[in-house]
Order: sequence, then structure tokens, then C-alpha cells
Amino acid sequence: MAVTSDAVRAALRELRIELPSWAFGNSGTRFKVFAQAGVPRDPFEKIADAAQVHRYTGAAPEVSLHIPWDATDDYRQLGAFAVDHGVSIGVINSNTFQDDDYRLGSVCHPDPRVRRKAIDHLLACVDVMDATGSRDLKLWFADGLNYPGQDDLRARQDRLAEALSEVYDRLGPEQRMLLEYKLFEPAFYATDVPDWGTALLHCLRLGERAAVVVDTGHHAPHTNIEFIVALLLREGRLGAFDLNSRFYADDDLMAGAADPFQLFRIMNEIVAAGAIGGEVRFMLDQCHNIEPKIAAVIRSVMNVQEATAKALLVDRAALHTAQQEGDVLGARAVLMDAYDTDVRPLLAESRTEMGLDPDPIAAFARSGYAESVIAQRVGGAAAGWGA
Amino acid sequence: MAVTSDAVRAALRELRIELPSWAFGNSGTRFKVFAQAGVPRDPFEKIADAAQVHRYTGAAPEVSLHIPWDATDDYRQLGAFAVDHGVSIGVINSNTFQDDDYRLGSVCHPDPRVRRKAIDHLLACVDVMDATGSRDLKLWFADGLNYPGQDDLRARQDRLAEALSEVYDRLGPEQRMLLEYKLFEPAFYATDVPDWGTALLHCLRLGERAAVVVDTGHHAPHTNIEFIVALLLREGRLGAFDLNSRFYADDDLMAGAADPFQLFRIMNEIVAAGAIGGEVRFMLDQCHNIEPKIAAVIRSVMNVQEATAKALLVDRAALHTAQQEGDVLGARAVLMDAYDTDVRPLLAESRTEMGLDPDPIAAFARSGYAESVIAQRVGGAAAGWGA
Amino acid sequence: MAVTSDAVRAALRELRIELPSWAFGNSGTRFKVFAQAGVPRDPFEKIADAAQVHRYTGAAPEVSLHIPWDATDDYRQLGAFAVDHGVSIGVINSNTFQDDDYRLGSVCHPDPRVRRKAIDHLLACVDVMDATGSRDLKLWFADGLNYPGQDDLRARQDRLAEALSEVYDRLGPEQRMLLEYKLFEPAFYATDVPDWGTALLHCLRLGERAAVVVDTGHHAPHTNIEFIVALLLREGRLGAFDLNSRFYADDDLMAGAADPFQLFRIMNEIVAAGAIGGEVRFMLDQCHNIEPKIAAVIRSVMNVQEATAKALLVDRAALHTAQQEGDVLGARAVLMDAYDTDVRPLLAESRTEMGLDPDPIAAFARSGYAESVIAQRVGGAAAGWGA
Amino acid sequence: MAVTSDAVRAALRELRIELPSWAFGNSGTRFKVFAQAGVPRDPFEKIADAAQVHRYTGAAPEVSLHIPWDATDDYRQLGAFAVDHGVSIGVINSNTFQDDDYRLGSVCHPDPRVRRKAIDHLLACVDVMDATGSRDLKLWFADGLNYPGQDDLRARQDRLAEALSEVYDRLGPEQRMLLEYKLFEPAFYATDVPDWGTALLHCLRLGERAAVVVDTGHHAPHTNIEFIVALLLREGRLGAFDLNSRFYADDDLMAGAADPFQLFRIMNEIVAAGAIGGEVRFMLDQCHNIEPKIAAVIRSVMNVQEATAKALLVDRAALHTAQQEGDVLGARAVLMDAYDTDVRPLLAESRTEMGLDPDPIAAFARSGYAESVIAQRVGGAAAGWGA
Repeated sequence: MAVTSDAVRAALRELRIELPSWAFGNSGTRFKVFAQAGVPRDPFEKIADAAQVHRYTGAAPEVSLHIPWDATDDYRQLGAFAVDHGVSIGVINSNTFQDDDYRLGSVCHPDPRVRRKAIDHLLACVDVMDATGSRDLKLWFADGLNYPGQDDLRARQDRLAEALSEVYDRLGPEQRMLLEYKLFEPAFYATDVPDWGTALLHCLRLGERAAVVVDTGHHAPHTNIEFIVALLLREGRLGAFDLNSRFYADDDLMAGAADPFQLFRIMNEIVAAGAIGGEVRFMLDQCHNIEPKIAAVIRSVMNVQEATAKALLVDRAALHTAQQEGDVLGARAVLMDAYDTDVRPLLAESRTEMGLDPDPIAAFARSGYAESVIAQRVGGAAAGWGA
Repeated sequence: MAVTSDAVRAALRELRIELPSWAFGNSGTRFKVFAQAGVPRDPFEKIADAAQVHRYTGAAPEVSLHIPWDATDDYRQLGAFAVDHGVSIGVINSNTFQDDDYRLGSVCHPDPRVRRKAIDHLLACVDVMDATGSRDLKLWFADGLNYPGQDDLRARQDRLAEALSEVYDRLGPEQRMLLEYKLFEPAFYATDVPDWGTALLHCLRLGERAAVVVDTGHHAPHTNIEFIVALLLREGRLGAFDLNSRFYADDDLMAGAADPFQLFRIMNEIVAAGAIGGEVRFMLDQCHNIEPKIAAVIRSVMNVQEATAKALLVDRAALHTAQQEGDVLGARAVLMDAYDTDVRPLLAESRTEMGLDPDPIAAFARSGYAESVIAQRVGGAAAGWGA
Repeated sequence: MAVTSDAVRAALRELRIELPSWAFGNSGTRFKVFAQAGVPRDPFEKIADAAQVHRYTGAAPEVSLHIPWDATDDYRQLGAFAVDHGVSIGVINSNTFQDDDYRLGSVCHPDPRVRRKAIDHLLACVDVMDATGSRDLKLWFADGLNYPGQDDLRARQDRLAEALSEVYDRLGPEQRMLLEYKLFEPAFYATDVPDWGTALLHCLRLGERAAVVVDTGHHAPHTNIEFIVALLLREGRLGAFDLNSRFYADDDLMAGAADPFQLFRIMNEIVAAGAIGGEVRFMLDQCHNIEPKIAAVIRSVMNVQEATAKALLVDRAALHTAQQEGDVLGARAVLMDAYDTDVRPLLAESRTEMGLDPDPIAAFARSGYAESVIAQRVGGAAAGWGA
Repeated sequence: MAVTSDAVRAALRELRIELPSWAFGNSGTRFKVFAQAGVPRDPFEKIADAAQVHRYTGAAPEVSLHIPWDATDDYRQLGAFAVDHGVSIGVINSNTFQDDDYRLGSVCHPDPRVRRKAIDHLLACVDVMDATGSRDLKLWFADGLNYPGQDDLRARQDRLAEALSEVYDRLGPEQRMLLEYKLFEPAFYATDVPDWGTALLHCLRLGERAAVVVDTGHHAPHTNIEFIVALLLREGRLGAFDLNSRFYADDDLMAGAADPFQLFRIMNEIVAAGAIGGEVRFMLDQCHNIEPKIAAVIRSVMNVQEATAKALLVDRAALHTAQQEGDVLGARAVLMDAYDTDVRPLLAESRTEMGLDPDPIAAFARSGYAESVIAQRVGGAAAGWGA
């Protein structure tokens, strides 16, 4: 029997999508960062923008910080500011790729001095977690090589393991380490954590509070991401999902924009595993290089909600029966019946029930917020990846 | 200090490249299998052809069998025939993809009857190992899905784990299970063992005598294969290497033909780990669709030898120093100095020392073997992937 | 102003999807062709099956033949048989890849004798066109190289141009030559017509009745196919579209199965150019390796119809305005509003208007046709790629 | 008969590799530009560095300028400075991607004002050509879309054609337009000139003095670049080659570093076509993000020379014979015999004949130039992609 609309709406309310502070700052490619008017100039303004997304979607109550981009003297003040704006501080992201010392790597660098510096930064991020009450430390390492022979692939794994171990030991009993992988960029020959297998191997060694982060844009062409999701869920090691979309490499486009069917298939594995509302953190990690940022984040949240709603609509009993019978076309039809459904009315209804405007994009546009910050945020340096 | 030519030649003599019986039969694409004259018609003739490769290279003393393509009533006779020809029987390869029952999978099939049949075949392969004295069972599963929703990705992993466990338990104390992964083909949406991470996870669960098989053609575009090799060697779980080369997908061209620098980088990781002459089996797995088969296999063995010789020439002390100093161009130069060396004279000398002709291709051509089998092997059905 | 439902239904009736005779025969990969019961044994039975698809969709009135797979002594009889079954014979496809002579190529082969043989086959295909009243000759060449150096890339282009020219000159004034390109397979190093640019260059030299065939599965990873479609339409050289879908290479899955958003984007360019119902032939070119073939073709036709209906629903005036204003999110929203619409009710209504069952899959299943051909088609050799 | 060493050395002296001024400035990824000491601060210092490369290789007598990065008030002075340093100014590169106006494109932008601005910049680049005596205008457009629907693919081609036409008409009779293509980055959904076919179509419309630029890093995965080179040479439309190498996307690593065999295959097509010393310009276009820049450029020039030397060593008569005979392994062996040759002694000898040090890397290192510019170039802003 198919899921009822009530059940879908109830399940959807469990879906929380964490927002990255940096999505609201300027971003771009190596060729150009196009400046946008009204962009935040500090972590407070970023949180204020993020709060707008939650205000109109009701689904994005947490904001990830990126240290040092969001470093501040008083994290309690920042946390209070967030709460005043209806959101809270979520995951802490480290940065070991923007100091000149990290030219040849951070925790995998051949020089112990640089490794020490990188590890100290990671430990400082745990301090920030303690100060903000964040539960998860998210680690992405840009470490890698541009040329064959440049360094020893295997020795770098040893150094990585050692660094992770020290940081893991520093975590409190309720804190987790989330390890992200990425095929390439900025390293162009070998990356030290290039795939889910490498990330998982390190997590298995570290302990139960280490889990893998999947970023949709960090895979080789043709990689079946929902397969990885299903596997990590089976192992209990899917820590978080960095949502975005791509046509080519790590394009960081809005989630669901490049391949909405892929996003549906991913959410389908998550729904099938009962993982909505559980330990997996769903986060956006996007760059709105050419489009207005707050509206783009609202749209991305809506895209994830729509994909999830479709996944929730899958008639799992019928699907299971067709699969067991080896009915290839029948099983596919059950899945596609959910995907082909227009879930926008259902989501509009759900929002109305929650006291929200059924059309978040239009409501935000009417609010005049975008215009007001353009008027107010004059002078100062716009936030970006470097600050 | 750079390695001496003597040391390189000594190390090269440790390198054994196992030959697949099926490389000598007809092969092709889904579009056409082009028949070649003189192709073997049974496992005996395949072994006779493989023995020619060893005769002229001195580096290929073992032949892998594929069951049921090489099934015979009397494996002892087959083994004796091999010994008479100067070679021996190596790895046993299973086949759970060419029976109509396997349309939707074998060990991952939703129907327990089909799974039982597949497992029974795998157990029968262990019987063959007992009869032939083979130490390694190599498993490649074509299992997978063509359409999203067709079956349950996670349930299939459970079925796979169960099947592997039963077979692993049947192995003798000196026998190993080698598990191969492949991104796609023949499955076009999801493959049940698509990457090294999935294969390794199963091996870790099974026990110490389970290890991963890396096939150069089984990866997503842009995958750094030598990184995987280094990682698996670090874990002690690189069981075997299926050598071949590709420009696109699983093209199964001659090893070293598409990207000789990649083959060098792979062998460089293997040499750096001291894994020549150890537990890792180096095997060819190729399809000589348009070129003469025996000569193509000889050429492939030579290509692997040349890549290995270059890897052996790397001045590891100088490399290590440059790497430690962060000298990107210097470290790269040490590696490339070995790659740019013409190692053919060194290999010719090595062959002469072993009493072989310095030019195996020319010696084989002069022998008249190709012409004689064309004359003799008239009538009967040429061996191919189906027989 | 958005398109009305009436206008969409009227436009949809212009969409004709030609069916390949070979989709109804057995197919597979190099690993295995799984036999299905009830598969046609000759071109007559293939046409009978294809006619079923048209009977339930009303959108597939033509069947492509593949010579020699569908060769017959009396094409007038075959044509009459088709008409009796409510369909007609469409494009003629040549085959210069399944003769042992073509091991190293056909029209690009270094040996003039082989080239002559291949050209003669192409000329014979034009004879078949004359006999069947077919308007289009569709050429796909498997020609290419497996190894660098194997032949002269440039000389092969000269030979190709010469062959195409001779065949083009033989065409009647109402006949066209449609030239297909493909990145790889069966050739694994270089293909002689690998991309749209090569195909178009030859067409430009030949004359106005030569046009390019785009097959969705024949591109490098990440290729933007709708861009190619837009470009070829701009040049007036999009001759035909071979529809199917893929996750990896030339997987030949059902159209719309792997990436329904891509199919929508492609049809969107076609609709935007007003090319439905014009000179572009829309054809399926698929392999139903594991699923029932007739139902799979019906589903594929429906998938193309749904993508086209969505493309027809795009509010082009609103899209144009948003594009002109540089409103990135607004323009995208106009496009996605059409894609997110559930067009199945609209298509069901359209079918009812045409006197068809609103649910073609269910109607075909109820008809008992599949069961009847299984009962009837006993004995004889099932049709496949080789016959 | 194989080519003699004398002939190879003579041919090598015809090979000129143009250097891009920007290779000597700082570069990086969107994540970080690592500053290097001693980096030039203006076009004069860039030319001085480039002249070092020519001083030690004797093969790089020309330097490309990038406008506005290298804009200066007095190009005659800059030209004279170059001549004083033993080099001259080569190709002029335009830049229509680093102004905030170009957020949605330049010559393809929907707004005519922005298009006008972009065209005016291109025309100003022709003025620079007139002032510097440069013969070639190299155009690369970052124009494209990040999201489906964002703009009209076809209308953008019309705008592009119009802009190119105006600029082409402005060129003097001895001046050429070189049009570069690139698959993606910075645009992530569609690029307006994504492939060689699109570039060539525009060139064919423009006239005989328009030709295509091939950049090794600008293709989809698996693209056969030497095929494109052969095709463009056959059409007489290969204008220039931007040499670099990549493992993933547009990595801009040193030429020959990622796949030396590919570079050899490319140079082999160029040598086979007799195109060394002709109209094709060979240029480097690289980013030395982590390695010392001048030494990296010297190494890159040497890599191109080595690949070319190997291509020159190919025994073309033997190759042709084997190809004509359909001898797959024999033809491949002829090609590989050249590739496997260690050409470093030959190049050393050639340098000695030219009065150069046989080891350019060592000679440059000994010169103390790197240390002297680090000492001298203190203060001021290091040149990079933005200045």
C-alpha cells in the first residue's frame, strides 16, 4: 500500500538541512569571484542570512561554521545571536588549506612542523566545538600531490592516520569526527583521501564516533553515489551528506539542479534505510557564483525536500514484491511512479500546516530582505573563502 | 645511490606473470568476435599456447583456468600436460554469468534457488583447486542492476556476504579467496562489487585469506590506480593484479599499451613496497580481438617487465631525500629519470643470462609455431568466452 | 503565457518515434546474451512486435530495418506485411562490422578490396531503400583502431570521405544520408567518426542531403548533448536522434531511464527550435538485455512522450524574459516548472482522445500478446544481432 | 629506413615553443594561490624570466602577452625590452572574464551593452597586436551557463558569431584569429565554445585566417586529442596548441607530466603532417601552483622536445608498410620503438651543437638567477591572474 500524504508530511518535518555559513559569502572559480551586493561581512551577518532560509522553509535550523573564516573572539555571543535569529550553530569545519605553509599539504606534509601546525588547528576547532556546543567536527583535507613522485603515497597515509588519531582522542564522548573525501582539486595527481573507501578505512581504525562525509561533487565520473550511501548506511558510517550538484567536477551548483533524478535516488536509499531524522547530517555545500545567494539556498532546500518527498512516496511493499519476483519493469515502474509525481502541492500544504508561506521563494522576495541588506551592508570587506 | 643493473636483473627474475587461458581463445565485443586461425579448441591447446609465452619470456610459468570454459574430466591429466609443457596451473576463476539463470544476478539474485546454484558452482571451483593444487580462487561477479529500483542494493550486499562466507569457509588453510571489483559492464546501473572499497569491506569481514583483485580496466575515469595499489599493500590486502590497459572502459588491451606511464607508476608502488616475488599475483587479463594472440601475450609480458625494470631503477634514496625536502621538481625528476631510461638492452641482457633469446617476439616468430597450429588445428570449435 | 494543454496535446500528436527492428530480438553484452522466450525469428515477426508498440501508443508508425539482419528476398512483401499491421518501413541501417573481413575496418580499411566490399554493401542498402520506399540511409561505422600506430588516422579520413562520396552520389533526390558518430566501442583507441564534429565535417562536404545522427549513448562523459542538438539544429544538420539512455558508456538502456532530466533538456532544444514533426527523425536504439522487449519499447516511447510534453509546457515567453533580464534563478524556475509537472494525466487524456487506452503498458499486458508469441514462436533461431 | 640522428636534430631546431607571460606569475586554485618569492611584478619582469627559459633551451624565443594583465603604456618599449633579452613578443591573448560585467558572459551576454564592451576589448587587443607586431590574436571565452534554462544556447551562438565577425574584419591581412575551446570551467552547465567542432564551425564561417586552438586540458574524459589534431591539420585549421597536462580536468600541469605517451602521440601526428616549423604555434599554458616557475617552464620545454624527438625517430616507411599489411602488432612496434628510445642523449648533443649547456635545468640552477630575483623583487605586488 502506498504511503499516505499525511505520513509523507510527517516524515518531511523530520528532515533538517544544515546550511554552510560560507554559502552566503562571495565565491567563484580560479578565474574570477564576482562580487554581489549585500553580501555578509562577518559571521553574524552570515547567520542572519542563513536564518532567512530557515524562516521561509522551516527546515534549516542549523548553520555550519568554517574556522577560521568564521572565527570570532566570543562564540557564546555568536551562538546567542543565532538563537535570537531562530537558528543554532551546527557542525564545525576546519581549514588546513589556506596558509602558505600548506603548499605541500597539512596533516600529510613531509615536514613535522607543518603537520603539528595543522593538527593544532584541528584541536583548536574542537575547542570551538566545546564553546559552541557543536557535536560534529567535519574534516576535509586538500592534501595531495600534483606530480607523480612528489611525495610518498603510503607515508602520507601513515601521517594522516597519526593526525586523525590525535584529534579523535581529543573529542568529547558526545562529539564525532566526520571525514570527507574528494577525488581531486586542489590536488591534481593524487589526493590523500580521494574516495569513500579511504575515508572509511581511517574511520574504522579510529572508532565508532568517526564517520564518512559524502559530497555529491567529489566523485569520479559515472560513480553511483546512492550505492555508496547504501553501503555506508549498512556499515553505520554515513556521518553527513554535503549536498550540491554538478555536471562536471566539484561544480557546487544548487542541490538537485544538475541531476534531480540522482538526488531522488540518493534520498530513496536514505528513506529506505530509515535514516531521515537520525544520525546522518544533511548539509548543503554550494557556491552561488552567479545567482543571488539567499534565494539560491532557499531553492536548494526546497529541491532536497522535493526529492525526499518523492522518496517517501515510494510504495515500498509493491517495490519489494516486484523486486522479489524479478519483475524488472514492474519494480522500476513503482520507483518512477513516485519520481514522476508532482510533489509541490504536497510541500505547499505541509508548509501551510507549519504556518509558513507555501511559496518560500516568493515570500522571501516580497520580504524586501535582499534589498535591505544591499542598502545596509555598505563598506567593509565582503565575506568570501579567504575571510 | 642508484640501483645497479645486476640488482635490477636479479629482481626482475622474481617477477612472474600468470597467463589467463582465455587470452588464447577468440574474443571480441558485443558487435563481433573475429575468428582467428589456429586458435585452441580445448584447455590443453590453450596451455600449449601459454607455454610458448613462457618458453620465450621465462617469466610466465603459470596458467589460470576459467571454469567451466576449461572444465575437464581429469584435472590431474591437465596438470601433468602443463608440467610437460614447462608450466603449471595457477589461479582458478569462477563463472557465474553465462547461464540463463543468472539474468538478474548470481550470488546476489533475489531468488534463493539461483543463489544456491551460484554458490554450488563456487564450491565446485574449490574442488577444482583441490584437484589442481591451485592456491587461489578468483571471484568476479557480473551481478548488478540495469535500472534503478530493479532490486534492493543493500539486500544484495547481504546476500553477497552470505555467499562469500560459505565459500570462504570451504577453503583449505593454504587457499585464498581473491575478490575482484568492476565499475560497470555487464550491469549498467549498479554493480554489486563496483570498487575496491566494497571488495575490501567484504574481505575484512571474511578473514585474512581474503584479498582484493585490482584490474586496471575496472575503474571510473580519472581513478588513480597506483593510489589504490599503495593503499591495499598498506593493508596487506592486495591479492592479485589483473593487468591489461584501456583508453575508455574495460577495453582489455595489452598491458602497457594505452598508458605505459601508468603501468610504470603502478609497478613503482609495488616495487617500493617490496611486493615483487611475494604474495601478490600478477596476472594478465586481456582480449586480443584483432591481433595475433600468442605474440600479443608475449608483448604484454615484455611490457610489464619493462615497466618493472624502470620501477626497479628508481633511485629510492634520492627520491626520499627530495620528497622530504619538499623539492617537487627534484623528486619528480628522480622518478622520471628511471621512466625515461631505455630498459630494453637491460632486459635483453637478462634474457641472454637466462638462456633465452634476447628478442622473444622475433624468436617466437622464427619458431613457426603460429603457422604449425594454424595447419594442425583444423576442425572443431575454436575456444572462446562461451566454451 | 504558458502553453495550453490543448496545444501540448496537438503538438504531441506530431511526435513520431521510429522503432528499430533489432530491439525486439535478443541482445546482450560480450559476456552473455540472455535468451528470452517468444523472441522474433525473422523480420516479419519483428515488425509484428513493433506494430504492437504502435497499436498501444499511436506514436510509433515506422520500423527501421537493419541489413543484413532483416534482409529478405521480397521487400515489397515485407512492406505490405508492415502496412497490414498498421506500420511502415522507415530508415535502412547498414552493417559493415560483422564480417570477418572487417576486422581492421570497412570503408576505412587499408586494403582497397575490403573497402570495395563495404561500399558495395552500402550501395546495396540504397537498393533496399528503393525497394522499400525508405527515405533515409543511416550509416554507423565500427571502424577504428585498438592501438596507437595501428593505422594512419588521416589516411582513414580520406578513405572514409571517398566511400561516403560514392554512396551519396548513388542516392535519389529524395533520399538522405544520415551519419552517426560514436566515441568508442568496438574500437578502443581511435574511432574514425568519434564525434559530431567529424560527422558534420563529412556531411558539409557531401551536400545538403547529408545530416548527422546523435545517439545519446555515444559521447564522452560529461558531454552536453542538448548543446550539440541545438548546434546541429542551428546548422540544419540534425538528421536523426537515436534515443536510449546510459549511466556509463553505450549502455543502450530505455530512453529516459538513466537521466530523465537530460532527455527533457534535449527535447526542450528540439521544441524550442520547432523541430517536432519536421525533418528530424526520432528513433529508439536500445537493447533490452534483461527486461521484456515489447513492454520495454512501449515504456521507452512513453518516456520520450513525457519528456516532450514537459518541453512543450515550457512558458517560452516567460523564459525569454527572464533570460534577457539575466535572472538566473527566475529563468531556471520557468524551465523547472515544466519539468516538475506530472504530465501523465495529460498524456492519458491525449491517448483517450486518439481512441487509445490511457495506460499502454497495462493494455498491452492484458492483450495476452506476449503469452501468445511465447506459445507460437517455438523452434527456429531467435533473432539477435547476428541474424 | 629509420631517420638519422642528424635529421632529428635538424628538425628539432625548427621546433619553437612560445611561453605565456602568466606562467611566471602566481597562480592557484579557487582554494588558494600560494605566493612564491621572486615572482615578477610587471610584464617586463615576466619577459625577463621567460628569457631565461630561452637562454637555457634555445627553443622558446617568443612570449605571449595577456591583456590586460600585461597592459602597458608603451608596447614598443616592452618589445624592445624583449629583444634586449633575446626574445620577442608573440601572440596576444584577450581577457573577457575578469570584469564584474562578465558575470553572465561577454560576447554571448544577453545584454548588448556588455557584448559591446567585450568586443571593444577584443578590438583593443588588435591594436596591441599592431603595436607589438604580433601576428595572432588568441581568443578564449569563459562564456557559458551554470544552470539549464539560464540563457538560450542557440541565441548565444548567434551573438558569438556576430562578435567574432566584427573582430575578424578588423584584423590586418597578415593577422590571424585563433579560437580556443574548453569543455567546462568556469561555466558548469554549458560552455559556448565547448569543443573543437564548435570552434571550427565558427572559423569556417569567418575565413581562412581563423583557426582552432587545442589545449590539452580542455576535453572531456577519454577524448582522443591526437585524432582532433590530425583532423584539424587535415582541414588546415590547427592554429595553435596550448600545451600542458592533466590527470582530471584543466589541471594545467607541466606538459608531458601526466601522460608522456599522449604528448608523444600528439607530436607524432604533427610530425607526420610535416607541421613542425610551419603555421601551427606551439605554446605552453600552464600553472605552476606549487613548484618553482622558471625551472618548471624549462622542464616543460624539455618534455615537449623529448616527445618531439621521439616522434621524429619514428620509422615512417616501416610504419606505413606495416599499416598497409594490416600488421597490428608490427605497426604498433614501429611506433613504440621510437617512444621507448631514450632521447635525452640526442637532445643533450643537440644543445651542445647550439652552444647551450646540455643540461638546461642544472645550468639554470647554477646561474643563481632564481636567488637573485628573490633578493631583488622585494615590495610591490606579485603578478598573478588578476594583475
